[in-house]
Amino acid sequence: MIVVMQLGATQAQIDAVCKVIRDHGHEPLVLPGEDRLAVGVPDSLGTDERSSIEGQIARLEGVSKVTQTSSPYKLASREFHRIGTKVTVGPATFGGEKFVVIAGPCSVESYDQFRTSAEIVKQNGAKVLRGGAFKPRTSPYSFQGLQLEGLKIIQQVGGETGLTTISEVMAADMVETVAEHVDILQIGARSMQNFPLLIQAGQSRKPVFLKRGPSATIDEFLLAAEYLLNQGNDQVILCERGIMPLDRAYTRNTLDLAAVPVLKEHTHLPVVVDPSHGTGVARYVEPMAKAALVAGADGIMVETHPEPLTALSDAGQALDPAQFGGLMDALRALAPACGTSL
Amino acid sequence: MIVVMQLGATQAQIDAVCKVIRDHGHEPLVLPGEDRLAVGVPDSLGTDERSSIEGQIARLEGVSKVTQTSSPYKLASREFHRIGTKVTVGPATFGGEKFVVIAGPCSVESYDQFRTSAEIVKQNGAKVLRGGAFKPRTSPYSFQGLQLEGLKIIQQVGGETGLTTISEVMAADMVETVAEHVDILQIGARSMQNFPLLIQAGQSRKPVFLKRGPSATIDEFLLAAEYLLNQGNDQVILCERGIMPLDRAYTRNTLDLAAVPVLKEHTHLPVVVDPSHGTGVARYVEPMAKAALVAGADGIMVETHPEPLTALSDAGQALDPAQFGGLMDALRALAPACGTSL
Amino acid sequence: MIVVMQLGATQAQIDAVCKVIRDHGHEPLVLPGEDRLAVGVPDSLGTDERSSIEGQIARLEGVSKVTQTSSPYKLASREFHRIGTKVTVGPATFGGEKFVVIAGPCSVESYDQFRTSAEIVKQNGAKVLRGGAFKPRTSPYSFQGLQLEGLKIIQQVGGETGLTTISEVMAADMVETVAEHVDILQIGARSMQNFPLLIQAGQSRKPVFLKRGPSATIDEFLLAAEYLLNQGNDQVILCERGIMPLDRAYTRNTLDLAAVPVLKEHTHLPVVVDPSHGTGVARYVEPMAKAALVAGADGIMVETHPEPLTALSDAGQALDPAQFGGLMDALRALAPACGTSL
Amino acid sequence: MIVVMQLGATQAQIDAVCKVIRDHGHEPLVLPGEDRLAVGVPDSLGTDERSSIEGQIARLEGVSKVTQTSSPYKLASREFHRIGTKVTVGPATFGGEKFVVIAGPCSVESYDQFRTSAEIVKQNGAKVLRGGAFKPRTSPYSFQGLQLEGLKIIQQVGGETGLTTISEVMAADMVETVAEHVDILQIGARSMQNFPLLIQAGQSRKPVFLKRGPSATIDEFLLAAEYLLNQGNDQVILCERGIMPLDRAYTRNTLDLAAVPVLKEHTHLPVVVDPSHGTGVARYVEPMAKAALVAGADGIMVETHPEPLTALSDAGQALDPAQFGGLMDALRALAPACGTSL
Repeated sequence: MIVVMQLGATQAQIDAVCKVIRDHGHEPLVLPGEDRLAVGVPDSLGTDERSSIEGQIARLEGVSKVTQTSSPYKLASREFHRIGTKVTVGPATFGGEKFVVIAGPCSVESYDQFRTSAEIVKQNGAKVLRGGAFKPRTSPYSFQGLQLEGLKIIQQVGGETGLTTISEVMAADMVETVAEHVDILQIGARSMQNFPLLIQAGQSRKPVFLKRGPSATIDEFLLAAEYLLNQGNDQVILCERGIMPLDRAYTRNTLDLAAVPVLKEHTHLPVVVDPSHGTGVARYVEPMAKAALVAGADGIMVETHPEPLTALSDAGQALDPAQFGGLMDALRALAPACGTSL
Repeated sequence: MIVVMQLGATQAQIDAVCKVIRDHGHEPLVLPGEDRLAVGVPDSLGTDERSSIEGQIARLEGVSKVTQTSSPYKLASREFHRIGTKVTVGPATFGGEKFVVIAGPCSVESYDQFRTSAEIVKQNGAKVLRGGAFKPRTSPYSFQGLQLEGLKIIQQVGGETGLTTISEVMAADMVETVAEHVDILQIGARSMQNFPLLIQAGQSRKPVFLKRGPSATIDEFLLAAEYLLNQGNDQVILCERGIMPLDRAYTRNTLDLAAVPVLKEHTHLPVVVDPSHGTGVARYVEPMAKAALVAGADGIMVETHPEPLTALSDAGQALDPAQFGGLMDALRALAPACGTSL
Repeated sequence: MIVVMQLGATQAQIDAVCKVIRDHGHEPLVLPGEDRLAVGVPDSLGTDERSSIEGQIARLEGVSKVTQTSSPYKLASREFHRIGTKVTVGPATFGGEKFVVIAGPCSVESYDQFRTSAEIVKQNGAKVLRGGAFKPRTSPYSFQGLQLEGLKIIQQVGGETGLTTISEVMAADMVETVAEHVDILQIGARSMQNFPLLIQAGQSRKPVFLKRGPSATIDEFLLAAEYLLNQGNDQVILCERGIMPLDRAYTRNTLDLAAVPVLKEHTHLPVVVDPSHGTGVARYVEPMAKAALVAGADGIMVETHPEPLTALSDAGQALDPAQFGGLMDALRALAPACGTSL
Repeated sequence: MIVVMQLGATQAQIDAVCKVIRDHGHEPLVLPGEDRLAVGVPDSLGTDERSSIEGQIARLEGVSKVTQTSSPYKLASREFHRIGTKVTVGPATFGGEKFVVIAGPCSVESYDQFRTSAEIVKQNGAKVLRGGAFKPRTSPYSFQGLQLEGLKIIQQVGGETGLTTISEVMAADMVETVAEHVDILQIGARSMQNFPLLIQAGQSRKPVFLKRGPSATIDEFLLAAEYLLNQGNDQVILCERGIMPLDRAYTRNTLDLAAVPVLKEHTHLPVVVDPSHGTGVARYVEPMAKAALVAGADGIMVETHPEPLTALSDAGQALDPAQFGGLMDALRALAPACGTSL
């Protein structure tokens, strides 16, 4: 931590800053400058202590600003864990040699709809099947999912097809139930900072697929992952799915694709991109999925539906079977140039 | 809902749009234009049906865009409920004649700290005492609150001082426990779209204080309130607490004060402003609190701490007793010019 | 400047950083930490050198990040200029005892329209008359202003009414012409980083009214002012007029009112708020204007039109004469509680 | 245009809306709904009239909102111009079969530096040479470019190497001068809404390379292009270069790559991506350049410098010769899978 003093800060003001640091048992390092002075605080502090010192110093007279120098996340950081983490679930390995495609409908609507979806997913060579049973919906009047019945359908279809399954869990007290029915727990964008849920999911033995919140900075995203890792669950997959848009006229979100190389550099966890939510428009999914592949993502998650025109949710962004087949072909054509395969 | 066709859309494309509308049992209204055509859909649809029709039509060839015309929230809308809702809790009425001040520390740290805080709050004439027992913290390494012990302290100090109490609940399965100890349930900004929590809080008999999420549009905010109202709880107070900042160099968030007149116009629910989180800097709290008062807010929520330099969380934004006293004096001086009082 | 090294940076990497600093003739200060190390660079560097060193160091292996500690603006900073600047133009003083109201139509449409506007402005006690002659319009098909004819009308009406006048200049080569006709040069939000224009306006003798760009950080805004000051023009008034909105459904921009106390703390220049552009909605102008007053602004700029229903631009946000009269009354009622007057 | 009335709007309020429309000589179309009513306005209006009607109606009692249905840009729209525009300048064709690479240093620093840069650019197979002579810099203390001397160097080196040249013009009165020295006029992000500059550039015979402003919506971007087209210049190339970032900790901007398919769908103009400014970090340029290629862009613009460690501006984002060579190889490897070549 670096405390930058205001121009012309008095010695008494500098001493007050040093006193707070010493009161916490640390030795301040005074860094003189020509027109102002900075005070360094050793960065081995715990987060809590750092936050406490920062808040206290920020109040003092003569202080211009306080800057953190050390990474707020430790377990998620690549600095402490140089080798990339691989998360293997059934036939799929996230962070491995192959590019993983997760596909399926936004919502599980019936056994038939989900079974048909699964077959399309499988025939086209994707390994992981998605489907929402508990749906977070902006409006209370929208379809909320089949809930427990949906989970049972996912489990059954997963068993029948051999596909790895993933579904969203929205509350801490549902982690166990969802974990009993699916292979990967998804934590949605709006739940990224649902801390009781993160703690509970961190305590489960299941891999967790964590989506970035629409206004989450990279640090906030990695600190949410840190909650999971800190509970002992190191099977964490990160997902960029679009951040708050500049305008909402043409896309639903702004897909932050540069987050892929940023995350690959700063964390050892696998990184997946969701171009369906990232754009909200079916015809933009393929270009963004290809972009994710070449930018270094470990996989994508896309929405596909056997009959999008009848979908109960997110009809506008789901790929129909022909579009999904086209996407898979395009990715397969591109993969060798990226040193990977599907 | 209005479907705008692309320039030169064919009759077959227009017919396909009309067919989707008729398939849902509604009669399309074709609205000709000189260089393109729009198709109107009666807006009496349920949200679910509307969303389904929108998604389906958005996929069709020849469609340029789909625009919703009706308000997505009904119970929260002032259109259906012209008279402002008053939420009375003990000595405080939100949405009434008086401007309500909620104050207290970010976190309950001990009985002594909280009792002292309460006395400062009471002596200065505020009616509602805040204090966090369960703390949502960005980092797992930060102080997470005294939890159940904190709730007990709040209940005890509330009883001793006669102040109305408010504290945050972070998960659906904790609603009952928190409701047993405090007078008002707070749902934090990061939980604004925690739908299981909203549903549970909507089923409780307690007033709910709902904070706007950092990236929530006005519609998303009012739809979150709609979840509460839809469960039969009409004791809902809205709180603007700052949205995602343009930069983070000088303030923690961007306080969206214009949301006050916007919300007062579009909803009947009381509106409170939190300038402590809205700015994150103690010395900006007073100007923004005064601005909230004159802009028409029904109250403010501020953080105050007997000794900010020792606070375990949010030390930088808490008012010390002298600052808090000054703030209350300033508000009292300003209130008559706004036709209100404290 | 502080260079934070990555965890485990090698001595050679640290040496490379120190070499860049020494190559620029400065002595690095090594600041050891427990798990990583920081290198301080004296902050007396010129901006150019600082930017050059930063870019070079950011490329080096083993570097985690580079943080600036010194203020990038000097002449605009209150650190170097403790006393607030007053800008006096005719009967109005910005940054003085009185709260200054600038009012008038978005565009000058005719002598009659502008003369009538001026009378309404004057009768209600405002001192400064605004009116656009050269209009920056998003679309080439929108009314672009009366241009030179508009300037002449402004000059004439200013002379007839004794009001101080202000109008926008959009290009460096028009500074002289506009300066010949009006009392204050306005630089619009979209021109905030039109550097040739800033330089030219800085060389004129006229006071400059500088609007914040919709995506400008506080530092970028003050650096734009620095361009003016750096050319020797110290008669600069800053204007917050709303930043990019979260959504566009209810307001045109997000009025960043907290920028008022932030700017008043960090710069000595007067600060004015434009609630007309800040919200884009006539009925939100009064609450936001009052909020600006109590938050510490030195004045407001509002759009008023004798007959908004016939306005050629920005009809939705202009106050009609009754609304404007009401606003002035409301401000006069509020001013004493803020230690000011109109 | 669709005017949505409030719930329970009176007949008199509806009549007032219809009167405004009729006063402009158009026939309103009333679109009844079950709980509210909409009024359609024929969309053949000119922009100016549309804006005027919208502003007037927005003020009326009983009006809930006004929605535009027609595209605000005409000449830039693909609706009216189905075939993609090709802009050919020397050996490069934007919007043609080949993917165009524009490369070169941020600033022209000397003949030697620029000549060396050009050779690196040419050896690696890029066709267009960039270099800033007039530099828009956030701070007045930063290097402002070699100005006229820089232009002469660009012209000389362009002639010597046969590369097409591009350089930024910052003001209307400099268009002619810049046009005399370079092949393509660049209008920078901060000048995207410098309307006098757009008009002047639109009147020149030179191709114009228009960068998207950091807070510009797609409509605002295309309306800026419309200014150029409206002056008779149809040689316009669009460039996505990153929008305002969510945070500034890891990248300088947020590269909005989905803007590529959005723009390719809505306009006939060629679309180029600038991953250097889009990320601000040299090591993220290659992944984002590849992503631009596969997402359907017509080319990229990147910064490269013979010795980034000595660069006078943007040192952190410039590719060194080895990085640039690697990028070109990577693009060449990827191009066939995208049906293109370099």
